[in-house]
Parts: sequence; C-alpha cells; structure tokens
Amino acid sequence: MDASSPPLTLDDCRALDAAHAALGEMRRHFAPGEVGALYLDANSIGPMPAAAPAAMQALMQEGWARLRRRSWNELDWLDQPRTLGAAIAHLVGAGPEDVRVTDTTSVNLYKLLRQALAVAAPRRVIVLQSGVFPSNRYVAEGIARAGLAQLRFIDDMGALPAALAAGDVAVVALSHVDYRSSERLDMRTLHAQIASAGALSLWDLSHSAGAVAIDLRGTGADFAVGCGYKYLCGGPGAPAFLYVHPRHHEAAWPAVCGWMGHADTFAFDPDFRPAPGTDRFLVGTPPVLAQAAFKAAADLWRGVDPQALQARHRSLTDTLIALVDRQCAGFGVTLASPREHARRGGHVALRFEHAALLSQALVAHGVVVSSRKPDALRLAPHPLVTTHEDLWHAVRTMRDLLQTQAWRDPRYAEPSV
Amino acid sequence: MDASSPPLTLDDCRALDAAHAALGEMRRHFAPGEVGALYLDANSIGPMPAAAPAAMQALMQEGWARLRRRSWNELDWLDQPRTLGAAIAHLVGAGPEDVRVTDTTSVNLYKLLRQALAVAAPRRVIVLQSGVFPSNRYVAEGIARAGLAQLRFIDDMGALPAALAAGDVAVVALSHVDYRSSERLDMRTLHAQIASAGALSLWDLSHSAGAVAIDLRGTGADFAVGCGYKYLCGGPGAPAFLYVHPRHHEAAWPAVCGWMGHADTFAFDPDFRPAPGTDRFLVGTPPVLAQAAFKAAADLWRGVDPQALQARHRSLTDTLIALVDRQCAGFGVTLASPREHARRGGHVALRFEHAALLSQALVAHGVVVSSRKPDALRLAPHPLVTTHEDLWHAVRTMRDLLQTQAWRDPRYAEPSV
Repeated sequence: MDASSPPLTLDDCRALDAAHAALGEMRRHFAPGEVGALYLDANSIGPMPAAAPAAMQALMQEGWARLRRRSWNELDWLDQPRTLGAAIAHLVGAGPEDVRVTDTTSVNLYKLLRQALAVAAPRRVIVLQSGVFPSNRYVAEGIARAGLAQLRFIDDMGALPAALAAGDVAVVALSHVDYRSSERLDMRTLHAQIASAGALSLWDLSHSAGAVAIDLRGTGADFAVGCGYKYLCGGPGAPAFLYVHPRHHEAAWPAVCGWMGHADTFAFDPDFRPAPGTDRFLVGTPPVLAQAAFKAAADLWRGVDPQALQARHRSLTDTLIALVDRQCAGFGVTLASPREHARRGGHVALRFEHAALLSQALVAHGVVVSSRKPDALRLAPHPLVTTHEDLWHAVRTMRDLLQTQAWRDPRYAEPSV
Repeated sequence: MDASSPPLTLDDCRALDAAHAALGEMRRHFAPGEVGALYLDANSIGPMPAAAPAAMQALMQEGWARLRRRSWNELDWLDQPRTLGAAIAHLVGAGPEDVRVTDTTSVNLYKLLRQALAVAAPRRVIVLQSGVFPSNRYVAEGIARAGLAQLRFIDDMGALPAALAAGDVAVVALSHVDYRSSERLDMRTLHAQIASAGALSLWDLSHSAGAVAIDLRGTGADFAVGCGYKYLCGGPGAPAFLYVHPRHHEAAWPAVCGWMGHADTFAFDPDFRPAPGTDRFLVGTPPVLAQAAFKAAADLWRGVDPQALQARHRSLTDTLIALVDRQCAGFGVTLASPREHARRGGHVALRFEHAALLSQALVAHGVVVSSRKPDALRLAPHPLVTTHEDLWHAVRTMRDLLQTQAWRDPRYAEPSV
C-alpha cells in the first residue's frame, strides 16, 4: 500500500457520493440501524429494507391470524419461490425462469451437485477448491461418502487443467468469490475451460450476488447457488437461491423430489412428475414468513440496473482501498484482496496480524466489520446503502485505533463468528 | 351415524369447556383471528400465538436492523434448531436431544430415509403406504430413481407382514395419521412388527404432533419427521422437525452434510466431522425470522402436558362427532374417520358427496374447514384454542347449510387447496 498518494478528503468522498446520486437514492429505502453505526458487514447480513417490518406484520395478521388456511388460495405464498427468483435474476445475468428462491445454500448445493452428477453421468468426479467455504466441502464430502461421487481438490485455478485432464470430471464447483480474500474468479474463462473438457460448472455466488455484475447466461455457466441474506438483503437466514441454465431445465429428475417440485402439486398425483424447468428443484412448503422479508428486498432489486450496481460497488470499494492505503498502511495493514475490481467480490479484505482484535475494537467504536482467521479483516460496504462518506469515517476510526493502539485493550479478546 | 342419541346442547358444550378449564386457559395466548370466525383448520395452519408479531418485530429491529452481524454472536439464532426441538420433544415422547427443528418436512424425510438406508445396509427396500401424502411418495421415488433404494407399496397394514417377509426391507415409512381420513396407526404394535423383521420404522407425525399424545421413545420408533406449521403453530411454512432415536444418533454420516451439522461449525475445519447426536442433521444457516415465530409457539408448548392435550383433543373431537351425528346425519354426512379416539389423529374427516362445495359454503359462513377429493370434509379443532362451544356453533352452521342446501349456491365452485 502507498501512503504517498495525494490525500482523499472527506470532501472528495462527498463529491463521489454526489456523482453516484442515482443508486444513492436507494439508501432511503433501508432501515437506518443504530445512530452513529457504520455497517461494513453486508457479507454477513445485508441491511433491512425499511418496508420489511410492516410487510411482515401485515402477512402475520392478515395471512396467519385472519385468513389462515384460506391464505394458501388467496395469497401468493406458493408463487414466491418463482416471483422472488425472477426479481433477482437480472442481478446474476439469468432469465426469470432460471432462478428459484428456496431452502438454504447448502441444501441447494446438494441438489445441484447431484443434478450435475446425473447430467454428466457416467462421469463422477467433483472438482472443488481446497479452500472453498467449508460447508461446500462438507456437502460434497457427504455425497462422496455415500458413494455417489469422487472428490478432487485443487489449490488454485492453475491446477484446473491437470484436474480436468483425465476426462472424468462431472462438475467443477467453484466459489465465485473467496469468502476470506474476496478474490473473484473469471467465470467466463473458467467456464469455457471446464466446458471444453466436457465437464459442468457450478458457482457459489454468495459473496458476489447483489454486489458485482454476474453474467450466468452469457458465460454459459451450468449451475449456481447463492445466499439470500448477504448482499441480497433477504433477512437473517433468508431462503437461498439456485440457478439452472436452460439447457439443463428438463434434463433429469431432481435428487430431492417433493410436492412443490411436482408438475401439478395439488393434483395429489401418486407418482412424481417433475415440474417444467427449475420449479422441479423446489421440494417442501415454502418458508412463508421468511419470504415476506425477502420480498421487501426483491421489490427494491427489481429497479436496480446491475451495471449501475457494479459501478457503484467499484467506486465504493476502490475508495475504501485508497483510504486504507493513505491512512493505515503505516500501521501494518495490507490489502489481502486483489487490487483490480474485476478480480474482487463483495468485500474488501485487509491483512493485519491482530485482525480479530482490531475487528472487535472497530465494532465497539461503531464500525461493524468482521474477521477471519488467521489475519483477515473483512469490510463489506453495501452498494445500495453505504456512502463514500461512510467509508471515510470508517477508515478514520480504524486509523485512530491503530494510532492509539486501542485495539490492544484486553476487552477485545472474544472470538468472533 | 346416529341422530337418535340424546341431544347435546349448547349448555352441555359450555359445561365441557368448564370441565377442561386448565388447558382452556391457553386460548388467551393466541391471536383471536377474525371476529365471528371459527377456525377448524389446524391441520393446515395452526393459530398464531399472540406473542409472535411483537417477537418478530423485536427480532427484525434488534437483530437485523441494529445488531446485524453481531447477532450471530450476541443472539441465540444458531441455537434455535436445538432449543425449539427440545421445547416440543415431550409432545412426541422424545428426549430433548432427539428432536431438531430445521428445513422442511420433505427435506427432513429425504435426510432420514437416506439415514435409515445407511443404517440398514445392505437392505435397500423402502416400504410405503400407497396412499401416503404424495410428497412423501415423491421423496422416496426420487431416492429410488437415483438407484439408492427399491420401493414397495402396501395398501394397508394388513399387507405389512407380506411386505416384510423377504427380509430385505430397510425402512417402513408410515404416516402416523392419514391426511384424508385421519386414521391413526398403532405405532407401538407396528414398530414392534417392523423391528422384529429387522427393519427400521420412520413416522410422519404431521397430522398428530401437537394434537394427540405420541410416544416415540416408548414405542422404540427409529425415526420421525413432522410439520411445524399445523398443530404446532410455528407459523406458515415454519421449519419442520425431525426425530432420531438415541440408538441411531451416532450411527452414520448424514446424507446431506453442511456446516451446521459439523462438530465445530466455526472451526472452519476443511473436512466434515459430524456433530454429536441429532445436530448432524442440521445443514445450512437456520431460518432466523421463521424461528422467531416458532419460538412464540414453543414457549407455550413447554408448559403443556401431552396427556392433558390428548384428553382435551379427545373431548373436543368426540364432541364434534357427537354433534355431527345428532345434527347432520340426516343430510348424507357420514363419519370418514375412525370413531375410536385412539385410532384418530388431529382432525375429524366427514364424508359428503359435495364436500368441496360444503367446505366453501362453511368458509363463507365463518367456519374455516377444508376438503380433499373426492368427498372428504376435514374439521381440525386446535386443542389449545378451540372450545366445545365453538364446535356447537360450527356444527349448527353446517346443519343450517345442509338444511337450506345453501352449499348449492353457484359461487361455491372454486377448487380448494
């Protein structure tokens, strides 16, 4: 990092906010949170749409307390996996029919890994990054332990050609963005490489969807899953999403069949007939209350141009890096994420020997960030909510804590999730 | 049915309410719903605990809007699958460690059918009732289609010995209560029969849990799943529950592995190590908002004695049948459920040629019931909320509609879920 660059002042940051006034307007549609708190934790739980609490109350009073059983007919509860999927599809470069909001990221990953194995049979190797988010490894390990696949781990993308060389790979399951470093993979190039080896690609978009532009259809990616409660702002523990490329919509039965994935749920047909397209990947009754919160976010996302989102995200995170360069480089803080925006995902990761302590000190001083062992500090602005001015104040707080070494205070010793 | 029995008057029903005053007190802890409406649809969506809306608001404002990322540490979100499971365990005769609240009934059924197959290997036959709830068939069909099991259907329990005779059955998956007729199976006898053939039993408790007493540990049942949003009042689309007998807690890896089922979720261990006991059947991030609603119900269930619940349910449904006998038998309405309480589940099913039309007419007149093709009318009192007096008014409304043939009005023609 470079502390010799020209200063980036509070006024400069305000000028950047003025230059991004269009999406900046979205901020007022979100709940403000705590007075004085700066939230740089959109990679953990995205901000709450201001409309969500009233929408939830209305649903509970009208749908649950008053209509009860009649809601199944009179409200749109069973449509939401489709409606919510269609509302966010443009953010990931998908058609509205390609995306469904349902279950959790891990359960969806299970479903789509099994689907990829079915499509690519008799190939049965799953290639995974060795450092992928642990739950993704666990899902694949469970499938392998049941004798349904073999796993092959790669430490980086340089190892991919060798992993594909034997011609036995069914699917390469990649985190689009690393949950620690925020390194973003080149989906287009990697998908082409994977496809040319006769394998399928599956992408975990948890740390990119709702932050940077993604082009699932354009890159030809086969499958994707992602988290609903991070940048997408669907609410804590929100249902996740899944994407299936149209070429696979009718390919095979899902591994986990259920009535919501049946061609005619309420015919009570004794035998399973998969619904057309991605609906077949729905399983049980949808989480009606959780959907009400997600809908408040989806209503905002419908109006968001993904290129404008990406431009604002780039400006915010480039500014964040520049501020850290200028103010914190002298205190042992270095950039852990790639500097180039095209190679970065939602958050900016910094490296600092005592990241967990600094993270706690920042939280105590109103700057909500997170850390990951051993030395990563993660700062995740939300592109619809965070301002450049927010970042100026956040980095100023960090600089002060570093300068005074206040992060050494013994109360900053709790382990952090 | 018998219309010649001595009359059962409104005063008689009020006297029965007075005799069941203890659990009758629970009624005030639930939202009243619509003025004048009588809800006999607890088999579809149980009533809303009065505390649920405020609890949800508090969680959204405090956990989502204010604490955000800090909630993972500071609130109890990740404990809820255990806490909620422990709160309802006594209702199904389970120990607190045996039950977890997570995912949907269908996804849990998938997980436990696969678990049963792993435990019982090399046996690979799943026995199912041919008329089981369709989603349960679909789950099993998906497993069989993937080559992981063979299915064998039985039309009734009389066919069970023959189905078990070959000694190849891994698991018999039964609906404890039929979703149409409300016929309840004898868990103790059937489990013993299944176990003596070297097979495992798996029970779907969706139409019995929260209504009648269940003794999973006492009967020796191996596995169970059930719905969270019916009698248990967890809210529309609430997470479901699963039960695993202690003898299987440590038996095998789960089919669907995820970080919430890891022995140390936040160690970010690269390799899956199953958590002790039933925690291993947790997969992805729990549905935090949905859990807040379920918790409002769980807080009530903790104080409910299952024998008192069963006694009240019996009194209510026996009274309902007696009222129908006396008032509706002359109009072609017959009892479709077993008359004996021990052989009945949560709801009472009646048979009427035009059940769908009568159901709609009843709803239009404030009596919320449901129908199932071809001719079943389902009435499901909630034992913590419905009064004997409610039932008197409901049956009186039904009698009036039958007498006037008002259900023939052309507006009652919509299909019903």
